[in-house]
Amino acid sequence: MTTDLNVGTDLRQRSADSELRRRAGAVVPNGMYGHLDMRAFPAIPQYIARSRGARLWDVDGNEYVDLMCSWGPVVLGHQDSAVEEAAEQQRRQGDCVNGAAPVMVELAETLVRTVAHADWVMFAKNGTDATTMCCTIARAHTSRAMILVARGAYHGAAPWCTPFPAGVTAADRANLLEYDYNDIASIRAAVGEHADDVAAIIVSPFRHDAGFDQELVDPSFAREVRAYCDSIGAALILDDVRAGFRLHHGGSWEPLGVHPDLTPWSKAIANGYPLAAVTGTDRYRDAAGSIFVTGSFWMGAVAMAAGLATITELGSRDAVARMREVGLQLSSGIADSASRWGFGIHYTGPAQMPNLLFANDTDYQLATAFSAEAQARGVYVHPKHNWFVSAATTPDDLDMALTGLDGAFAALRQRHPRA
Amino acid sequence: MTTDLNVGTDLRQRSADSELRRRAGAVVPNGMYGHLDMRAFPAIPQYIARSRGARLWDVDGNEYVDLMCSWGPVVLGHQDSAVEEAAEQQRRQGDCVNGAAPVMVELAETLVRTVAHADWVMFAKNGTDATTMCCTIARAHTSRAMILVARGAYHGAAPWCTPFPAGVTAADRANLLEYDYNDIASIRAAVGEHADDVAAIIVSPFRHDAGFDQELVDPSFAREVRAYCDSIGAALILDDVRAGFRLHHGGSWEPLGVHPDLTPWSKAIANGYPLAAVTGTDRYRDAAGSIFVTGSFWMGAVAMAAGLATITELGSRDAVARMREVGLQLSSGIADSASRWGFGIHYTGPAQMPNLLFANDTDYQLATAFSAEAQARGVYVHPKHNWFVSAATTPDDLDMALTGLDGAFAALRQRHPRA
Repeated sequence: MTTDLNVGTDLRQRSADSELRRRAGAVVPNGMYGHLDMRAFPAIPQYIARSRGARLWDVDGNEYVDLMCSWGPVVLGHQDSAVEEAAEQQRRQGDCVNGAAPVMVELAETLVRTVAHADWVMFAKNGTDATTMCCTIARAHTSRAMILVARGAYHGAAPWCTPFPAGVTAADRANLLEYDYNDIASIRAAVGEHADDVAAIIVSPFRHDAGFDQELVDPSFAREVRAYCDSIGAALILDDVRAGFRLHHGGSWEPLGVHPDLTPWSKAIANGYPLAAVTGTDRYRDAAGSIFVTGSFWMGAVAMAAGLATITELGSRDAVARMREVGLQLSSGIADSASRWGFGIHYTGPAQMPNLLFANDTDYQLATAFSAEAQARGVYVHPKHNWFVSAATTPDDLDMALTGLDGAFAALRQRHPRA
Repeated sequence: MTTDLNVGTDLRQRSADSELRRRAGAVVPNGMYGHLDMRAFPAIPQYIARSRGARLWDVDGNEYVDLMCSWGPVVLGHQDSAVEEAAEQQRRQGDCVNGAAPVMVELAETLVRTVAHADWVMFAKNGTDATTMCCTIARAHTSRAMILVARGAYHGAAPWCTPFPAGVTAADRANLLEYDYNDIASIRAAVGEHADDVAAIIVSPFRHDAGFDQELVDPSFAREVRAYCDSIGAALILDDVRAGFRLHHGGSWEPLGVHPDLTPWSKAIANGYPLAAVTGTDRYRDAAGSIFVTGSFWMGAVAMAAGLATITELGSRDAVARMREVGLQLSSGIADSASRWGFGIHYTGPAQMPNLLFANDTDYQLATAFSAEAQARGVYVHPKHNWFVSAATTPDDLDMALTGLDGAFAALRQRHPRA
């Protein structure tokens, strides 16, 4: 590995990016919003020109190995040829029309075969659509209103779940109760006298709150929350929007043998094409059929063809195992580099979705500087959100990533000799 | 026009459609859901194989002239070559990546130029995303909670606005007040003592509630609701999701000279590609920048490239005028046919988005039978929802539509001699 300590965050040309940020500032509030807003991280490009496999190019022509994968959706690699070909074939027939295309049925049948707990599927466009639908289905089934959510967990950006309060009313949150992840006692305490009012408990497959160390699920917690839901007649909603299809083909808690009643999916389900889904058990089928949800583009056939190809290819390429292998090599290389340059790091979460924070870095100053140095060396990572590995990562990509990240640690050490 | 009275609803082969409905019934609750659910209308194909221009082909090979336009999204015609080429060029570069593509800025600049009231734009995926964002922005700006909605109006399918109550809690609707469309007195009455609590009044550009005669906006109502919003410090939200880009390029109330504060857009904005947007005035820019909304696919660049091409082509082809011309010919032909066959009809709404109901047909029996006869003659219309005309409609398409609809009236007369 080469390490050039003189390479800094100002190495890369960013004039096209700056100009687009300036123009956007006039016609979009703050120029950007939501999870892609890079205002706090000026060293991270806001505008991406091109993507292929595990590589990205920003609008100034800088190349990156991509460790964010579009924040999850890209799981087989950018512009995967099998997915693109399936999408193109469907596109020549039709996309958004007056009914569904036959591919809707094939995709639904494939999901029911692939996802262990699934007896049925519904489709939507956003992860938030799917998490909200799960709550609505649980409420329709139970005729109860309350939903338990883990403190700090992200389940989407509708008023009932968005992490920032602007424009949110008290009524939007009136039926939520909070518990602590991996703490069954906190669930019992939150439910308290409300056992007859709880429609569902929603839980992430592991704790992946942005800005914090990730925490794998305690298998006994998973089993206990399943049993507790059964005991009070509430639905168990496993929010697999972020982790789905990256940890296991059939649902992220399958390795534990714990089956949810309802699962929202999105992100990796169609390798970047806009698609979300809800899967559920027969017990919740009538309730799912009783709610009215829809969207102008929900039956768009191109995204469904992409979804069918993605799920098929994930299986035939053993993509989860490949992502795990890449993730473990990344983990090992990063541990070596951190140790070589004397940094205490918290590298947490599943290998395919790691999160890097620095010890005693409560204001994310080191994480932000590290991410900037990584970007400057052609490695796209984020300082406050878990990363994502794709199955397209080649040995060359991994080498470029580890070289760049080692250089970033080295530069960080030079800039912060005592950190 | 030829009219074969022996042609009936059982003319068309539907075996492939039936088989797909059967398979879907096993893996999707009720086989289908939302606005594309055709269970109540067995003569309307549930599955569409192919689309081009103003034509559709179902999975049994039957051809239709399309008067639903995917329930609004398709405005230039299916598979419009300019839109498809723009989408394809962007697709070769990238779609859903770690940031936005330059086309996001171009599209935002184009919308700000095109939409009269717009100082800024935000993008999303569903019409419901956009209507919900408008409410959230209005609440963030005013620090108030209440929203006025017209009784029976459709503003999306989230719990706060979905037309059917299953799974909806009282809290989801706690901050809504209802008024009657075109009735400023009902707005004053609904607000009553709540003037200081009202964040926004949301209004459709015309009354297009499904299953009812459509009602154009009374220009004095539009001016009064604008003035009333100003007087109580509430935002005026003009819900242009359904009608936008079909009635006027720059906003459906532009012909009246009444500017909203916030407008949600979707459907026709990208000719069928999944995209939604919110436009707003500078007064609401800070509030729009203060809320947290996002989605995994919201910055998808292909849909934005399609949107940019759609808006550009709508202008250069004078598409709204073309749709109006087609709509007026359709209206005139249908009036002639209804009169020839002795039916009293209510043909309401703008020419580009007409709604056909039959006099004294409160259970929609005639409308449903008429729609079935139309489908059997290759005209895709819906019995309980307004239709949509596209700019791709050729004289041949129009002739096929009018011939088929005349045949449908004739068949209906034969089956219902005294209706």
